[in-house]
Amino acid sequence: MPADPMLVTREGETAIVTFNRPEVRNAFDLAQWRRLQAAMESLSADETLRAVVLRGTAGHFCAGADIGAFAIERGDRAKEDIYAQVLHESMQSIRLCRHPVIAQLEGSVIGGGAGIATMCDFRVGDGDIRFGITARNLGIWYPYAEIEPVIRMVGIGVAAEIFIEGRIFTGREAYEKGLLSRLAADGAAAGEAMALAQRIGTGSPLSARFHKRALRLLGGELPISAEEEASANGFVETEDFHNAVRAFLSKQKPIFAGR
Amino acid sequence: MPADPMLVTREGETAIVTFNRPEVRNAFDLAQWRRLQAAMESLSADETLRAVVLRGTAGHFCAGADIGAFAIERGDRAKEDIYAQVLHESMQSIRLCRHPVIAQLEGSVIGGGAGIATMCDFRVGDGDIRFGITARNLGIWYPYAEIEPVIRMVGIGVAAEIFIEGRIFTGREAYEKGLLSRLAADGAAAGEAMALAQRIGTGSPLSARFHKRALRLLGGELPISAEEEASANGFVETEDFHNAVRAFLSKQKPIFAGR
Amino acid sequence: MPADPMLVTREGETAIVTFNRPEVRNAFDLAQWRRLQAAMESLSADETLRAVVLRGTAGHFCAGADIGAFAIERGDRAKEDIYAQVLHESMQSIRLCRHPVIAQLEGSVIGGGAGIATMCDFRVGDGDIRFGITARNLGIWYPYAEIEPVIRMVGIGVAAEIFIEGRIFTGREAYEKGLLSRLAADGAAAGEAMALAQRIGTGSPLSARFHKRALRLLGGELPISAEEEASANGFVETEDFHNAVRAFLSKQKPIFAGR
Repeated sequence: MPADPMLVTREGETAIVTFNRPEVRNAFDLAQWRRLQAAMESLSADETLRAVVLRGTAGHFCAGADIGAFAIERGDRAKEDIYAQVLHESMQSIRLCRHPVIAQLEGSVIGGGAGIATMCDFRVGDGDIRFGITARNLGIWYPYAEIEPVIRMVGIGVAAEIFIEGRIFTGREAYEKGLLSRLAADGAAAGEAMALAQRIGTGSPLSARFHKRALRLLGGELPISAEEEASANGFVETEDFHNAVRAFLSKQKPIFAGR
Repeated sequence: MPADPMLVTREGETAIVTFNRPEVRNAFDLAQWRRLQAAMESLSADETLRAVVLRGTAGHFCAGADIGAFAIERGDRAKEDIYAQVLHESMQSIRLCRHPVIAQLEGSVIGGGAGIATMCDFRVGDGDIRFGITARNLGIWYPYAEIEPVIRMVGIGVAAEIFIEGRIFTGREAYEKGLLSRLAADGAAAGEAMALAQRIGTGSPLSARFHKRALRLLGGELPISAEEEASANGFVETEDFHNAVRAFLSKQKPIFAGR
Repeated sequence: MPADPMLVTREGETAIVTFNRPEVRNAFDLAQWRRLQAAMESLSADETLRAVVLRGTAGHFCAGADIGAFAIERGDRAKEDIYAQVLHESMQSIRLCRHPVIAQLEGSVIGGGAGIATMCDFRVGDGDIRFGITARNLGIWYPYAEIEPVIRMVGIGVAAEIFIEGRIFTGREAYEKGLLSRLAADGAAAGEAMALAQRIGTGSPLSARFHKRALRLLGGELPISAEEEASANGFVETEDFHNAVRAFLSKQKPIFAGR
């Protein structure tokens, strides 16, 4: 039986999604984009989770699209229209996942791999990563919908380096440019990503979800509904808020039930 | 007589607003948000000013909302709707103050304290500050209107660290993330903030006010009126512009009268 | 015969535009803005180019607007309305040039010189540059259309330093603030700018042009047409894409013909 190319495991309240195609440095073909979407949508629906970590096997996050599959999957316009739609829905499944998503970056973070990383809420990597989007090496045009979140994260100056130049950044450069949330010590990305997930888990999950959604709404990625506008002060009607205030005033650690 | 919880003083053409509730690290209750708004609106109307510095007493900027007052002020939805409105108007009084506003950051810059800082035009702090928005510790949802300026300042990646993780940054980290305009030497935030205010005071006040307003208009915070659109080249009709060009050509320092 | 104040030369597939008014540190008068526009529009139409480098003679990029010419060119509202329009069209000729544009920054990068730099796709400078927009020294209001790209590049916090304070940054500070794409070793800006141009030249020109245009469209500078929306997957119908995939799979360097 072949190894599962996308592993979903769980450590406490953190889900871990592992890209497992080491023979191609975890490159994504069409089936893998669909697996990622299925995994993220399933995790998003799981109310018991507090965070999701994305990572790759064998020392690499993801080397991008699987070019060996291009002839079959991206050979003409009709195929590319499907491929782009599948990729987009997969990227959106990260972006709209109700839980915070952390990219644990190691080794190659290239092309669609860097694309996946930019869709996450947090990016943790060490100095040894190679991070960049290399569409210009293949004459590819990166999709508008996947460029926009990069602009919203690092501005049009760094976006020019990423998309026009196709620059490959070291971990330190990526941190200096705002592409990494955290620069880990060498080999420590896994530990730091997990510590971040656990730290998020100690806070209010309703608060984390509200703020993640707010970044989508205010970034213009989703229209803000009248209901969402009206719900802004709704935390005051949650049990968690009142329990946390009580805990604070009696100098105890708050426990959040997510309601 | 109790000490005034909000002191407004003046040094030359700079106004200094000091949060003075050292017993709670200058935390804000409802009355304090209203005092800040009253102070800022009064200073905004004062044509003789060139800059405003916000600071706190006793080594701390502001530790955020005064949680001891929550039961009275934020206990249910009706109260929270009022609280959020008062907080919003207070924050806007900084944002729309006609003069540039500088946050002099020391010690705790937490929760609403960091919120106030992000509303200012400039943030000067030393390496020892603790800077972060900790809504997630209490199950609070930060208001949309106060999240948006943070996105416009540092992008959605750093905003995720602030709002979803609730990360507490050191001064150096805050500087690296674009949250501080200046990283001062230890203990030097006060001197640097004042030097910045005085430096702003040597430039054209009409220019400073136009540019502050332009950042609000272009950031999408205010609609741009036809009158404002038409006024863009209006500097050429001010005395200050012609005097400054003459001064420059005769190698003298310009003096700006604000007209 | 006087020296040409704007030199256009070519090195391989890179055009080099040199501001050549060393007697005023390459400051721009009305005629120079028009020369820049004419040069950029001509280069934009040249399909054989891959990149454009902007630079100044005699160790300076550009000291800004030529204040000696203000009495004639910017003395009243009617003149200023023309001046602002000419400046805007000149700035747009950089922004809309189909090829990536690199600013090679040395010495003074002040006022309109820094403005030109912010219009470019890339900014390469060493630690010794002086970079800043000093409208506030003359009581000038910087045009909305030229402020907006700066906000989109570095956010409203750094924009406040640039426009309200009129801060002059060193090369290192400018790099830390996201104003420089690259911080070159002392005296190495020319070599780094040229290396960047050549590196861009090794990638797909259609890809570079698509991404440059995408940054304009997604940044809100241009409306996105239905045709442009529909063209997003069009790379799959180019020769360059299929040749590059073939080259990649046979471990050869791709050659891009731009079609």
